[in-house]
Amino acid sequence: MGDLPVSANLLRKTIYLGAFVHSKSLQELDICENGAIGVDEGGKIAFVERGVDDLDLIFKRHQTWAAATVIKVKDQGFFFPGFIDTHIHAPQYGNAGIVSKSTLLDWLNTYTFPMEASLSDLAKARRVYARCISRTLAHGTTTAAYYATIDVAATNLLADLCLEKGQRAFIGRVCMDSDLSPEWYRDESSADTIRKSKEVVEYVKKVDGGKGIVAPIITPRFAPSCHHDTMCELAKIQKDNGILAQTHISENVGEIQLVKELFPDFDHYADVYDKAGLLNSKMILAHAVHLTEAEKTLIKQRDAKISHCPVSNSALTSGAAPVRDLLDRGITMGLGTDVSGGYSPSILEVVRQTILVSRHRSFEDGEAAKLATEEALYLATRGGAKVVGLEDRIGAFEVGMDWDAQLISLAAVPADGEQELDTPVDIYGWESWEDRIGKWAYNGDDRNTAAVWVKGRLVHQRKSYGL
Amino acid sequence: MGDLPVSANLLRKTIYLGAFVHSKSLQELDICENGAIGVDEGGKIAFVERGVDDLDLIFKRHQTWAAATVIKVKDQGFFFPGFIDTHIHAPQYGNAGIVSKSTLLDWLNTYTFPMEASLSDLAKARRVYARCISRTLAHGTTTAAYYATIDVAATNLLADLCLEKGQRAFIGRVCMDSDLSPEWYRDESSADTIRKSKEVVEYVKKVDGGKGIVAPIITPRFAPSCHHDTMCELAKIQKDNGILAQTHISENVGEIQLVKELFPDFDHYADVYDKAGLLNSKMILAHAVHLTEAEKTLIKQRDAKISHCPVSNSALTSGAAPVRDLLDRGITMGLGTDVSGGYSPSILEVVRQTILVSRHRSFEDGEAAKLATEEALYLATRGGAKVVGLEDRIGAFEVGMDWDAQLISLAAVPADGEQELDTPVDIYGWESWEDRIGKWAYNGDDRNTAAVWVKGRLVHQRKSYGL
Repeated sequence: MGDLPVSANLLRKTIYLGAFVHSKSLQELDICENGAIGVDEGGKIAFVERGVDDLDLIFKRHQTWAAATVIKVKDQGFFFPGFIDTHIHAPQYGNAGIVSKSTLLDWLNTYTFPMEASLSDLAKARRVYARCISRTLAHGTTTAAYYATIDVAATNLLADLCLEKGQRAFIGRVCMDSDLSPEWYRDESSADTIRKSKEVVEYVKKVDGGKGIVAPIITPRFAPSCHHDTMCELAKIQKDNGILAQTHISENVGEIQLVKELFPDFDHYADVYDKAGLLNSKMILAHAVHLTEAEKTLIKQRDAKISHCPVSNSALTSGAAPVRDLLDRGITMGLGTDVSGGYSPSILEVVRQTILVSRHRSFEDGEAAKLATEEALYLATRGGAKVVGLEDRIGAFEVGMDWDAQLISLAAVPADGEQELDTPVDIYGWESWEDRIGKWAYNGDDRNTAAVWVKGRLVHQRKSYGL
Repeated sequence: MGDLPVSANLLRKTIYLGAFVHSKSLQELDICENGAIGVDEGGKIAFVERGVDDLDLIFKRHQTWAAATVIKVKDQGFFFPGFIDTHIHAPQYGNAGIVSKSTLLDWLNTYTFPMEASLSDLAKARRVYARCISRTLAHGTTTAAYYATIDVAATNLLADLCLEKGQRAFIGRVCMDSDLSPEWYRDESSADTIRKSKEVVEYVKKVDGGKGIVAPIITPRFAPSCHHDTMCELAKIQKDNGILAQTHISENVGEIQLVKELFPDFDHYADVYDKAGLLNSKMILAHAVHLTEAEKTLIKQRDAKISHCPVSNSALTSGAAPVRDLLDRGITMGLGTDVSGGYSPSILEVVRQTILVSRHRSFEDGEAAKLATEEALYLATRGGAKVVGLEDRIGAFEVGMDWDAQLISLAAVPADGEQELDTPVDIYGWESWEDRIGKWAYNGDDRNTAAVWVKGRLVHQRKSYGL
């Protein structure tokens, strides 16, 4: 659901005409001023042409595309890959913007657990989840790795809603069986955790039915929430199904201390997951703010992935993650909103904060710690695609990939400086392409996201921008 | 100019009905759920009633107000004082969002000076200035302390446009007579600086003609831009006219080193201004990121004011200002966007970053450095009012003050979670007032600013929110 109803599932061959921008590498954007991308009936990119603005020429080169729909960038904007949110708690969307004066562990008990527990009411769950999906789609998030709640029915509902609205999503029932979790919000036993986790895995696989839109993800909340035996069992379910897992690590110093006390026989926080079999190449670790040298080395060895959540880490006073250091070690990273530890559902906001927080990090670590706009945009797209194991299908515009994309609209300021203030970015016409992208990255918001597609399907559209 | 034409200058008695929120003190917001504020024909607050939602009762108490216009909050929103931007470069608005990979001094030469110099073209100046004023009004900025350029005609045009659009503004012609400034963008001589500064002071006083909307402000760019003798002369103009002055201080370590080299006979950066007679209670110092103990003491002694610009300080990798320390010393502070060192024209964005940057500061200085939402909102309103010397007239809702206000609109999410995504804040109805204000402060933007008034005059209105 966006401003307009989404299109039906039947797709037509479509040619996307105009500028497109995507990441070539961590440091470099590929900016094509005159592009044409052909997307087939299955939502896959069939061809990418550059330096063409003549449709006749394109039809000549691709003769079976004569009847294709043509969607054209109408202003100074461009097509950009959809964003990938590698860490977001859908139920907490109801609290987005409520930022605790305290830090992680207090905040969980005061705001988060009560909200999550209350979503066993399916009407309330629908109200919050529907809104969360609509909002994140409107912000250009085409793929999200969701934590739901411990409730099976509400978690399955989240999968249904993602399918209905067309957002590519990983759906995780949150596992919490330790008695550190509140009595009124935890699984009854380890067996209960395992049974319910399997139930959700089966349901999500079934409703997706091979469409490749929703998939299950094993989700032990974080080490203090689960018995170690339970984590071992969860690792088996992950392995048996060949699916992703996600959890939190080393977000906050109080939490790290707690893990040390709870798991005295383990080398460190990462070792708790490792010994359970969860530290593997299909594991998404959120935060990783205060990792030790040994943990970084182990994470790199195991090829586990990291979701960087700077908005949350600043808002909850968790710390500033050493992103450059982690990247330099070759660890795969993406970005996460961490709603509602992070107040904003927008990955573009996370892009900005990734850059700003890296500058705060540079006050200590030196100039090299600074991340450029290009790097943050890479992490939001190709980086995120690698984190969720879909780097061959999403995150960029290459032949054979799915069309998971957003149309970024950038309007021009008229000569007298007066006009409707419809979108937040002002383009005068004197900007270089790099400057134009910068203006969007720093001042853009969902008003600039004119349309969003997942696997070729139109899943969000702004009414004011007719396609 | 907003979405709709502003009202004519003739004002009618108006009663603003509904919730209002303003700062009681640095730490505390005054939240009145059922308020009625009467604003007279001169735009002044004549009465503030609390705990009333019955108009008949209000008319009974204020019998001469029977024919007053009534403007009512229609959703879960509230009236809030207009924001005060204590540091903004109007010409640089054309570059907003173009963030340098480098730091201050490089950025000035690459982006800023060329843009400023080009605005001697008055058509271009109008295009950029008109947009800057419209944008900042749309974001709820009712008062701005502007730096213009060195050009007299363009600076006077900025005053004309603020008057026309009804934004309260301090208009500063930028003084730059040292040969450190580029040959193509500096005053010809000290005499030229003084003559042109006087010209602008006279012009702005004349066009305002006692309306109290625009006022001149003496604006030596920063110490490296001006000869010391020139600064002494500027201080005299300031004193003779009893007006404000503004400049930059201690933003970046490279700049501080430069000042040390240029002014070897002075004790420190603040001393350069002090010996010129500029460090006085009507001086606004922007940034103040790296002040020494001696400088902080001197600034407090002189009662000079500080404009905190965290968006800019992070974006330009300048540093994180020690706001708590400065406040604890009793120094008066407000917030500034510092467009385009700061990428955003929104003081609400600066509010957020004030909070976030204070959390980064707390990693070093401890818990006490953290600023609460209430504190950042105070700095954006009452703090800013003190910085510009208007604490008796703006920044809060008290009898005798001017009606410089914004109507914050907060819509409710319907039961099924589906609806138009018109504004970025989602209110479900279960939020406390504190949470509601937090949701606005963290996720709100100009879409929540339904209407803006300066001195009782409607200066911006969102079409979709009929008053």
